[in-house]
Amino acid sequence: MKVRNRLLNYDMVIYQDDDWFKFSLDSVLLADFVTVNLKHKKIMDLCCGNAPIPMLLSDRTSAIIYGVELQKEVYDLGVESVIENNLDKQINLINDDVKKMSNYFNGDFFDIITCNPPYFKVKKDSFINKNDVKAIARHELNITLDDILKISFYLLKNGGYLAMVHRTDRFIEIIEKFKKYNIEPKRIQFIYPKNGKDSDLFLVEGVKNGNIGLKMLSPIIIHNDDNSYTDDINKLLNKC
Amino acid sequence: MKVRNRLLNYDMVIYQDDDWFKFSLDSVLLADFVTVNLKHKKIMDLCCGNAPIPMLLSDRTSAIIYGVELQKEVYDLGVESVIENNLDKQINLINDDVKKMSNYFNGDFFDIITCNPPYFKVKKDSFINKNDVKAIARHELNITLDDILKISFYLLKNGGYLAMVHRTDRFIEIIEKFKKYNIEPKRIQFIYPKNGKDSDLFLVEGVKNGNIGLKMLSPIIIHNDDNSYTDDINKLLNKC
Repeated sequence: MKVRNRLLNYDMVIYQDDDWFKFSLDSVLLADFVTVNLKHKKIMDLCCGNAPIPMLLSDRTSAIIYGVELQKEVYDLGVESVIENNLDKQINLINDDVKKMSNYFNGDFFDIITCNPPYFKVKKDSFINKNDVKAIARHELNITLDDILKISFYLLKNGGYLAMVHRTDRFIEIIEKFKKYNIEPKRIQFIYPKNGKDSDLFLVEGVKNGNIGLKMLSPIIIHNDDNSYTDDINKLLNKC
Repeated sequence: MKVRNRLLNYDMVIYQDDDWFKFSLDSVLLADFVTVNLKHKKIMDLCCGNAPIPMLLSDRTSAIIYGVELQKEVYDLGVESVIENNLDKQINLINDDVKKMSNYFNGDFFDIITCNPPYFKVKKDSFINKNDVKAIARHELNITLDDILKISFYLLKNGGYLAMVHRTDRFIEIIEKFKKYNIEPKRIQFIYPKNGKDSDLFLVEGVKNGNIGLKMLSPIIIHNDDNSYTDDINKLLNKC
């Protein structure tokens, strides 16, 4: 069912669907993590879903922000939110395949690309409904890591940033892909569900044709032992 | 000056040299981090220095432990400690080049290899005294990451473990080398000097010809805000 929610403590709404598409903390962490400064004029969010990242970023920058989402139903939710929030002059959403973005933009065009991609590989013997909206958002049915890195390298300016959130169990593979496509990992931050637990997610930012040299930021812990959010997460969710 | 110290709270001594070679917390963290179980019968510590890791491991296992150290002065300190601690039946130290270990051992021989290697690259224009004991221990003058990974792959049994401590700014490069030599990173733990600071060191354990799949352990914080050791580090240093 379509629902109209407030986007965190921001003065914005976000349309979601209870059944198949809600934005997650992952997107909030990524929108907070990515490097944004006054020189950055053009930003792209790949696999933008219902556009939480473009909307959150609009609070950090006056750059023009593009978002691409393949699924029409999810894209429509994003458009509705962008219009209601009067962000349609800053945010442009595109309903198409990420792999086709070279039809829309020249190379070396964007200062920043963000991406909260489908997290799960498709196993040969898995029973995934290839037409299911949720499955497409979660599984690499229509797009793989190689596709994302390849188009990101093309779209980014030299020295531009690619920031991604992903699952820690695929960390090594993702670092390899960044290196393969000459996007040098420069900042990484691991996310832990609780103190003393293994990390489940991480944030990574790479620079197109960047020099070697890595900063490993202090870890993000999501929950206290009593399952309440930690101060860091509360601060993030109640920013305004 | 040669000094005779107690090895942490263990009932062991360790000989060091104030001027050019003292073991560090890095070695203690590595000896605690590496996977050791009852099936493991043969362990090798590459670049063993004055042998803190072999001695610390002797408290966790009855396996035979080898250590290799190129520098005679440092090796001699290790031998003296091993003898005084009555560990000479369990620990065998070799005074030679790590790269020559295939002259001593067959391939597929060791269950576990540990290594706290020289941390720093040698820049072309750097003024390093190539005969300086401390410089050799700290800089890749006699051995590189490629050398260490290559000999480790040779010496390890299939499914054997390589555990290393290294600087976080070289993390990406080290992961690449592990992958290059088919030692799949399986467990990683980042070390932070304090809460909220970037990581400076990390621990990594890989498995020879291992499957993909990573555990990112909860971070280790060394100091409290008042510069005292955290509870975790105090526990580690006062184990016995």
